Amino acid sequence: MSGDAATVMGRLDILGACSEEPGRLTRPFASEAMRRAHEHVAAWMREAGMSVRKDNIGNLVGRYEGAGGDATLLAGSHLDSVRDAGRYDGPLGVMVALAAVQRLHESGSRLPFAIEVVGFADEEGLRYGTTYLGSRAMAGALDPADLRRPDAQGVTMAEAIRGFGGDPDRVGEDRWAGGKLLGYVEVHIEQGPVLEVSDLPVGIVSAIAGQSRLSLLFTGEAGHAGTVPMNRRKDALAAAAEFVLLVEAEARATDGLVATVGQLAVSPGAANVVPGKVMLTLDVRHADDAVRLEHVKRMQQLTRDIAERRGLSVESWPIAENGSIPSSPRLTALLAQAAQSLGDPAVKLASGAGHDAVVMAGLTEVAMLFVRCKGGISHHPAESVTEEDVAVAIDVLARFLELLAADR
Amino acid sequence: MSGDAATVMGRLDILGACSEEPGRLTRPFASEAMRRAHEHVAAWMREAGMSVRKDNIGNLVGRYEGAGGDATLLAGSHLDSVRDAGRYDGPLGVMVALAAVQRLHESGSRLPFAIEVVGFADEEGLRYGTTYLGSRAMAGALDPADLRRPDAQGVTMAEAIRGFGGDPDRVGEDRWAGGKLLGYVEVHIEQGPVLEVSDLPVGIVSAIAGQSRLSLLFTGEAGHAGTVPMNRRKDALAAAAEFVLLVEAEARATDGLVATVGQLAVSPGAANVVPGKVMLTLDVRHADDAVRLEHVKRMQQLTRDIAERRGLSVESWPIAENGSIPSSPRLTALLAQAAQSLGDPAVKLASGAGHDAVVMAGLTEVAMLFVRCKGGISHHPAESVTEEDVAVAIDVLARFLELLAADR
Repeated sequence: MSGDAATVMGRLDILGACSEEPGRLTRPFASEAMRRAHEHVAAWMREAGMSVRKDNIGNLVGRYEGAGGDATLLAGSHLDSVRDAGRYDGPLGVMVALAAVQRLHESGSRLPFAIEVVGFADEEGLRYGTTYLGSRAMAGALDPADLRRPDAQGVTMAEAIRGFGGDPDRVGEDRWAGGKLLGYVEVHIEQGPVLEVSDLPVGIVSAIAGQSRLSLLFTGEAGHAGTVPMNRRKDALAAAAEFVLLVEAEARATDGLVATVGQLAVSPGAANVVPGKVMLTLDVRHADDAVRLEHVKRMQQLTRDIAERRGLSVESWPIAENGSIPSSPRLTALLAQAAQSLGDPAVKLASGAGHDAVVMAGLTEVAMLFVRCKGGISHHPAESVTEEDVAVAIDVLARFLELLAADR
Repeated sequence: MSGDAATVMGRLDILGACSEEPGRLTRPFASEAMRRAHEHVAAWMREAGMSVRKDNIGNLVGRYEGAGGDATLLAGSHLDSVRDAGRYDGPLGVMVALAAVQRLHESGSRLPFAIEVVGFADEEGLRYGTTYLGSRAMAGALDPADLRRPDAQGVTMAEAIRGFGGDPDRVGEDRWAGGKLLGYVEVHIEQGPVLEVSDLPVGIVSAIAGQSRLSLLFTGEAGHAGTVPMNRRKDALAAAAEFVLLVEAEARATDGLVATVGQLAVSPGAANVVPGKVMLTLDVRHADDAVRLEHVKRMQQLTRDIAERRGLSVESWPIAENGSIPSSPRLTALLAQAAQSLGDPAVKLASGAGHDAVVMAGLTEVAMLFVRCKGGISHHPAESVTEEDVAVAIDVLARFLELLAADR
C-alpha cells in the first residue's frame, strides 16, 4: 500500500471535516468551510513544490513548473460538495493530482511542461443552483448575469465572490491565459457500479454521455374513484405508468442507454380521485448523441400512441439538451497505456454524470480516470473508496505524466 | 315541466349562494354560510306544513305529521359542501324530499306515518376532516373524541357546535328517539356517468359499494440517473408503474369493480435520481364484499410478485375497510314500482360513493334514488342536473310515499 495513498486518504478526511454543518459534510461555493479547505490544500500544494494562486471565482490553483517549453497540463477536480455529501466526489481528483506532483517534487523531477493542479470553486451548484462555476470561469464560459443570482440568504454571487477575496468585475480574467495547454485530466469516483461489478480499481472514461431532459404532462379527466366505471376513465396516472415502463424497456433494450423518470406529480392527488393530470420528467443519456436523439424521438412517438389509445392528451417540453463530450484520443490512449503498464486492463466506460471536464472541453482536450466506489454510491455520506484503489489511481496518473513527457 | 321542479331549482340556486367564500360555493359544518342556508330551508319547511327543529350537532329537521300510527319515515341528505363545490351534491336530496312533502301539504293529504325531512349538518368532512357528522349524531354513532378536534383556525368541534347554537355535551341526545322508523330515503346526484350513458333521468341504488383503502410503499434503491446502468437498477417508480397497470387491468376485467391509485409520491423526486421509494394509495370498491376482498388479496399477491421479480420490497397498510351497505329490499322495491308506474325503467345501480345512507343504515333500513348529473361530474362548480330530471325525482318520491302508505 502506497504511503501516497495513505496521505491522500488522511487529507480527504481532513477536508471532509471542513463543513458548514456540524456532523455532516456540506461545503458550498465561497463559504467559510471552503476557506478552511483552501488553507489546507494551499499548504499541501506548497509542500509539493507548487506556487499557489486563487482566481476571482475562487478556484485554487497550484503550479509546478516544468523544465523547457511553455506548455501546461491541467489536472484536478472540484472542492465544493452537495449537502450531506461524501468526502470523495471532487476532492479525490485534486488530492490524487497533488500526490502525483508531490512524487515529482520529492524525486526532484521536472517534466518538459508545467502542471497546474486545480481545485474548482463550484461544480455541484449547491449555493446558487448553477453548476460548474469554477470550470466555467476558467474556460471563459461564465455568464455575467449569474453574478446577480441571490443565494437562500439573499447574498448575491457577486457579494459572495467579494467576501471570498475575489473581484466579481474581473471574473472574465479567470479565463486560462497561460499559454499552450496540453489538456485537462480529471480523476473522479465513478458514481456508478460498473468498476465494482467488473472487479477493477480504475477505468478510463471514453466519453461523457450527452443528455436530454424533458418535462411531460399527461392530461386526462379527474373523477370520483367510486363512481366512474373503469371503461369511462381517462386516468392520467395509468397513462404515465405505461410511459414509465416504456422508457425502462427502451433503455434496457439499448446498449449504453440510460433513461429515468425521476419526478412524477399526480393531480389532484387524493386517494379517492382518479388522477386528471400527471407531470413527470424524463432524463435520457448515451455516449453517442445520435443514439440518444433517436431513442428520445422514439419514446415521444410511443408516448403519443399511449395518449391516443387512452383518449388523453400529452405535451412535452425540452428542459436541457447537452451533447456528448468525447475524451481526447491522445490523452485517453496515454492513460490506457499507463494503466496497462501497471497491469491494469484499462477498461473504458462512458461517464453518465457530468463533470468539470465537460466545461473544460471548451478550452482544451480532456480525459478522465474513474476510481471504483462502493456500491456506486455518491452524494451521500456512505460514499466510499479504498486506499488500495487510490494508490492505483496515483500510480496511473504518475505513469501518465511520464508517458506524456516522453510522447512530446 | 313541473312547477315543483322549477321551485327546487330556484331554491338550489339560493342555497348555492350561501357560501363562506365569494364567487364560489364552500359551505362547511356550523358556518355562518350554513346558518343562512338554515334560515332559508327552515322557512321552506314551515311553508310545507312542517314543524322545524335543529339538534345539537346542527341537523335541521322538518316534521310533517302523519294521520294514525306512530311510525316515521326519514328522508333527506346533507346541506354542507366541499370547497368550490357544485350546488346539487346534498341539497338536492333535501329539496326533493321537501317538494314531495309540500305536495302532500298543498293537497291537504296526511299519510299513515310522519315524514321527517333532514338536512344533515356535515357529510363531506370539509371543516374537521371527519365525514358524516350529521348522520352519525342521528344514528348515535358519533365518537365523542371528535369533539376535541380543531379546525384549521384552531376552533374545536365542541366550540363550533356551541357557536352554532348546539350543546356539545348533549350530542348523544341527537340519536333518533322518535319511535318506530320506516326507513331512510335519500335522493342524490349520481356523481358518475352511468345514468347519462344509459339516457335515464333516475336510477335506484341497489347497494352502496364496500371499500378497501390501502397505502403501499415500494422500496428500491435511489441512484444517479446517469451512472447506474439499467440492469443494476431497483427503480421504485418502475415497480409502482407495474402496480398501477395491474390494478387497472384487474378492475377492468371484473364487472362492477373499480380500483384507483389516486396518490403517488416519489422519493427523492429529482429529475436526475432513480426513484428509491414510492408511496401510493389504492382504493378498491365493489357492491359485493366477497368480490372486493378477493381482488384486493389478488392485487396484493401480484404486487409481491412484482417486487420479488425486481428485487424490491413492498409493504402495505390498511387505511379503511368498509363493508357494502345493501339497500332495503322493501323500500327499493317500492321505489322501483314508483318509477315504473311513471314509465321509468327503474334501472338499478350500485353507488360507488359513500352517502349519509351508509351511516343511517346503522339506525334503520335505507334506500336511495340517484339523479342523472351532467358528465358524471361532482365536487366541482360544473356539477349540473336538469329541471326535467328533478321533476322525475320528485314524482318518483311522491309516488313512493303513496305506495309506502298503501303497503302498510
